[in-house]
Parts: sequence; C-alpha cells; structure tokens
Amino acid sequence: MTESEILSRELDADGILRLTLNDPGRRNALSEAMLTDLGVAIAEAGADSSVRVIILAANGPAFCAGHDLKEMTAGRAKPDGGRAYFAQIMETCSDVMQGIVACPKPVIAEVAGVATAAGCQLVASCDLAIAAETAQFGTPGVRIGLFCSTPMVALSRNVGNKHAMEMLLTGDMVSAARAAEIGLVNKAVPPDALHEATLDMARKIASKSSMTLATGKRAFYAQREMSLAEAYDYASKVMVENMLAGDAREGIEAFIEKREPQWTDS
Amino acid sequence: MTESEILSRELDADGILRLTLNDPGRRNALSEAMLTDLGVAIAEAGADSSVRVIILAANGPAFCAGHDLKEMTAGRAKPDGGRAYFAQIMETCSDVMQGIVACPKPVIAEVAGVATAAGCQLVASCDLAIAAETAQFGTPGVRIGLFCSTPMVALSRNVGNKHAMEMLLTGDMVSAARAAEIGLVNKAVPPDALHEATLDMARKIASKSSMTLATGKRAFYAQREMSLAEAYDYASKVMVENMLAGDAREGIEAFIEKREPQWTDS
Amino acid sequence: MTESEILSRELDADGILRLTLNDPGRRNALSEAMLTDLGVAIAEAGADSSVRVIILAANGPAFCAGHDLKEMTAGRAKPDGGRAYFAQIMETCSDVMQGIVACPKPVIAEVAGVATAAGCQLVASCDLAIAAETAQFGTPGVRIGLFCSTPMVALSRNVGNKHAMEMLLTGDMVSAARAAEIGLVNKAVPPDALHEATLDMARKIASKSSMTLATGKRAFYAQREMSLAEAYDYASKVMVENMLAGDAREGIEAFIEKREPQWTDS
Repeated sequence: MTESEILSRELDADGILRLTLNDPGRRNALSEAMLTDLGVAIAEAGADSSVRVIILAANGPAFCAGHDLKEMTAGRAKPDGGRAYFAQIMETCSDVMQGIVACPKPVIAEVAGVATAAGCQLVASCDLAIAAETAQFGTPGVRIGLFCSTPMVALSRNVGNKHAMEMLLTGDMVSAARAAEIGLVNKAVPPDALHEATLDMARKIASKSSMTLATGKRAFYAQREMSLAEAYDYASKVMVENMLAGDAREGIEAFIEKREPQWTDS
Repeated sequence: MTESEILSRELDADGILRLTLNDPGRRNALSEAMLTDLGVAIAEAGADSSVRVIILAANGPAFCAGHDLKEMTAGRAKPDGGRAYFAQIMETCSDVMQGIVACPKPVIAEVAGVATAAGCQLVASCDLAIAAETAQFGTPGVRIGLFCSTPMVALSRNVGNKHAMEMLLTGDMVSAARAAEIGLVNKAVPPDALHEATLDMARKIASKSSMTLATGKRAFYAQREMSLAEAYDYASKVMVENMLAGDAREGIEAFIEKREPQWTDS
Repeated sequence: MTESEILSRELDADGILRLTLNDPGRRNALSEAMLTDLGVAIAEAGADSSVRVIILAANGPAFCAGHDLKEMTAGRAKPDGGRAYFAQIMETCSDVMQGIVACPKPVIAEVAGVATAAGCQLVASCDLAIAAETAQFGTPGVRIGLFCSTPMVALSRNVGNKHAMEMLLTGDMVSAARAAEIGLVNKAVPPDALHEATLDMARKIASKSSMTLATGKRAFYAQREMSLAEAYDYASKVMVENMLAGDAREGIEAFIEKREPQWTDS
C-alpha cells in the first residue's frame, strides 16, 4: 500500500481495512494531499483481494471539515484568478466521492466528530455510516458565500428534499440522532460504543463473499438511476450471472445442507 | 377465476379480493407454480370489474421466503448449467412484481410473518403494506452468495439508500417497527389487529371510484420516473381527462351538494 | 408590487417577504384569481433584489383548500365541456408550483391550518415548511372522483412511495407530526410558536448572500434530476463559478479573518 502521513491504513485479519484521516491539525480537511491519498487508498483497496470491507474513520474532534479553504484561497493568486485550479480541485474531489461509490468493497463511515461540507459529503458517499451520538453534520458553505453544491449531490441521494434544503439553506448543524432519523447515517450510538458497533457491522459484511458484495454494490447504484422496467431487466441479468458464480452455488448448497459456506470469492 | 392450490382467492361483497399465498410447507416460496398463479391472479383481478382492491396475505409463519432455492438448484442440472432457466425465472418474477405495479387495482400487503428476499420485494412492490408487529423483513441473499439484486429494485424505491444498503449488505432482518420507520411498510400493528387494520384500509379505498383509483395509480408510477417539468405536463393532462370523466363530475357535484357520490366507475 | 385583494404582501427590513393567502371565505382556494396573483407575486419577488426570502402563509383556519371546485364546475358549461378551460387551469397551477421551485429566493411555507389537494401541493413545492401542530395535510381528491394527480408530483418528491400512496389512495388527512415524520414538512411546532419559528428560519437564511442562495437553490433542483456522474460534473462547475463570485471571496476571507462577511449579493 502507498504510504501516507495524513491517511493511515490498518488491515486486520478479517480483511477489514481501516482508513483513518489523520490530519487533525487541519481538522482532516480535504486538502489536495488528502484527496490524492484518499483516492489512491480507495482505488488500491478496491483492487486488493485481501481487503473485504473498508472503514473510513478520522483522528481528532473533527471527522472532516471539507475543503481546505486556506489552500483554495491561495489559488486565487493564479493568473486566471484560480478558475483552472478550482476546477481541478472539484474534479479531484468528485472523483474521490464517486470512487467510493464505484469501489467494489463496501465502505462504512465511522463518524466520531464533526462532518461538514465535503466532510458531510464523504459520509453521505459511503455505503453505510455509524455515528457517535456526539457527532454532528452540516453543509455550512452558505454561511461563507459558497453553497455546498457538490456536497448536496451526495446528501440529496440520502435524505429527503426538505431535510436537505434545511441543511443547505440554513447551514445549521444536525445532531447524530437527527442524521439517523433523516437517513444520512444508519444509526447513532454512544461514543464509547462507536468503534465496536462499526467493527461489528464490518465483520458481518466481511464474512460474506467478496464477489457477491461487489456484484450487489455495483448493481445497487446502477439500477438506482434506471426506470423500473430497465432496472428489472438489468437486475435480472445480474441475478443470472450471480447464480452461475461459484460462491452462489456454494452458498446455496451450504444453506440447503445447513452448514457454513466456504467462499472462494468467485 | 383460475383455480390454484397454492394461492387462494376470496372476493367479498365490498369488492375486496383477498389473495392468500397458501404453500406454508415451502414457506410460501415463489416457486414457478406460485409465480405463475400469482401473475395470473393479479392479471385477472386487474381486468375484473368486480374487484376494487386487492389484499395480498399469506398462510403460515412465513409471509414469503423468496425464490424456491431447491427448485432453482435443480435447474443447474440442465446442459447450460441453468442459465436459460434462471433467466426465465427472473423474467417471470420481475413480470409478476411489475404486474402488481401495473395492476389498475390498489394492492395492499398484509404481512403477518417473515418476508425475505423476493418475499420482501413482494411487499415493497405493493402500493401499501401493513405489518404485524411480529413480522420481519430482510434481504438475506448475501448470506448465501446470491445478492438480492432484483429485490433491491423494489426495496430501494421505498427506503433510503443507507437503509437499503444496510439490509442488502448485512442480510440482517429488520423488525416491523423499523420497517415502518424507514418506509418499507405503512404501519405496524399488534398481530391480532392486523387483519382488521388491513381490511379497514381496503374498505376505505374500495369505497372510491375504481376509474379514479386506476387513473391515479397509473399516473403515480409514471410521473415518478419523469423530470419535474415532464411530470407536471403529464399529470396536468391526466387531471383534465379525470375532470371530464363521469365519476369526477358525480363526485364533485356530490361534494358541493353535501351528499354521498354514486360511482359508475367511469 | 402589483396589488391584490386576496394575496397580501409585507416586506420587512430584513428582506423577508410575507405572502399571505387572504381569501378565507373560500378557504384560500387556488381560484383563477389566486393562481394569477400568486404567480405574479412569486415572479416579482424573484426579480426584486430587496426580497431575500419568501414566507408563504395564509389567513384563516384553512391554509389552502386546493382548486376552487365551484369555479371549475362552472367551466363544464363551455361548448367543449370545459376541456380547454381545465387544461388552462392545470397549466396555470403547474406554472405557479414550478415558479416556486424556479424562484431564486428560498420559499418557506408557514402552515397554520389545513392544506389539502393543491394546497398540500403548495406546501410540498416550497423549499421548506414549518407547520403548527394543529395543521393537517391531505390529498383527498380520490374522495370526489378526482385523483390528486398534479399534487402527487410535488408530494412524491418529498415523501416515500408508501406514504404518498397512503395519502393519495385513502384521501385521509395526516397530522403535522406525521407530516414531519415522513418529510412533507421540516417540523411541527406549537401553534403559538409557528410565526416566530418560521421567522427565525427566514431571518437565518436572509442573512446569507442572495447570490449564493440563488446559485444553490437552482443547482439543487437541477442536479436532483441527473445521474450521479452528471450531477457531479454539473455541481463541480457550479462550485467553480461560485468560488469566483464576489460573495464567496468575501465570505471565505471573513471566515479566515474571523469577522462577519459583508455581502454584495454578487
């Protein structure tokens, strides 16, 4: 795995890769360096057969504060006023977020602290999210004149329009309990139970066939953008290929024979 | 009505057709026979003017366990390893689910027991669903290596992404109360109140004009797949035709005259 | 501002425009006159730089009872049975609803009473909505033979399918608390706290840059209808233009310098 000073990686014996945003001095901002390292880490984990599930966590009181505003502001000094630079940052950030969605491994956000702007987007982009009851979520860009327009792409694919609009237009923070109510996170747990709750969910998923998880995750996001008829045509084809795969044969046989399946991840 | 040993039909005086999955020995699995009989029953009910509302219920502790895995496994013996057979099963199943959506009569799931995989999809495909508090819902295919890819088409059109993904990736069951919270069912009621609660809702709907219900149900799913502007263009046209129909004339006159309307269902 | 007897307008010093449906004798029905006046008021407010946020409220026990059925019924006397007239009413109404969505100023519904049919649609069409706990919501057209097909366009873009279908197929009213649970309104508050709660939210939003609010609102609804990849491409471009605007420069500088921003709304 590529080394990074601001993004630590630990892979345990169950195939659970723990990625930890580790730049607490900058509130784990999505600086250029962080975006690059996160993009690389997700891509490498996606291609690494020893990784079964990814947990995305963070070190410090902030889960992630979004873009690095000082770094971005420095870009204004460029001859074009920063236009090309901002475009490149936004493209990189959008690629990272879509890389999480496209990653064949399930990604679980473990949110202990404050997740704002693109940090909130990061949580929304993960397949699953568990938050400490003390965590908070917000899209406060409107307060500084910069609407959270890219964060809302992910946010609005998790929560209802009225809820998304309230966060976006007011810039107010929402509690973890409220985030769970509106569907931004799966659940909120006591802070000292967060690590174990996330790990429990990760272990449960890691015990499944990686081929099956990759098949299903890809199909989920693909069918979400189709009409009902298209989605059924597509998902039916996915089911047929899945049935013909080794792990479905093994899983179904094990189920009928009332024994534990032995996955070959194929 | 076509006879079936595994799907019973009772039509009451209010035009409420009760379809009961009646193969408890196989946990009401969606075997080829069940899919065929259910498809026929829905199609016949859709075309039968004496049917105003459909309740889909089940006999035994399982509402429906999804596909019949033994039957499907037997298909592996075919020369092509089952490919054509699996494709046919998936197509038939998807047709049944879409047949519920396309049926001009509202369909209410009455869920007393466990609804899993394509059984959970069946609940999600109905227009409305009421569950006993003891009912449970799940998409556990991932446990046997066969991701619930077709069930998720219906599931993800009822619940948020994070909630759908949790069910799909973990395979965990969710309680009826949780299913109500996330929008998979309309409400959860005490087990001994389930039958009456469903019937109350069915009676209320059966008292409406069948023409109006058919118009509205068709328009609902059609506009759901359109952009806002397209949806308004389309729904405005639907409203105009509806206004010109006999039952709207009668209904509006009755409302203005403060009397009960007499529907002709046209 | 254009004068209206049935739609009052008050603009306060904070740039909050209060539009009050003021035809309580007709339960604030969306008569032709009301639709025209509301459409004009929204369009004028959208183009008026002194307006920062719009509150849509109503005078009397009904927030809005939907279309004016007596007026519509009179249209049946026309040579074509009302077809052209109904089409025109529906087009006008749909234009008003889409005008709220397209308006560059955030619109908050303040719902003290009963919002039914197109009145419920009006609430659903606003960006935000706060309701008194005594308010009620419904799409009861099905009771009079006229399915709420245009209201459901807005309704189904706020609440889940099962919840929308229950309201549409039964015609039952839902409480403000339930409306908050399912996402039709942001929250329900005690009746005597409604005015202040709405004003608080409006003031908070009015303190933001109008350019930023307009940029974000337009982008929100635009990206909602795109695929994930398209949405990110689009939103990234929006972010770049937003970064280059004066208010983002000012807002970010003020944030870094820990002072209040001074918006120029550009």
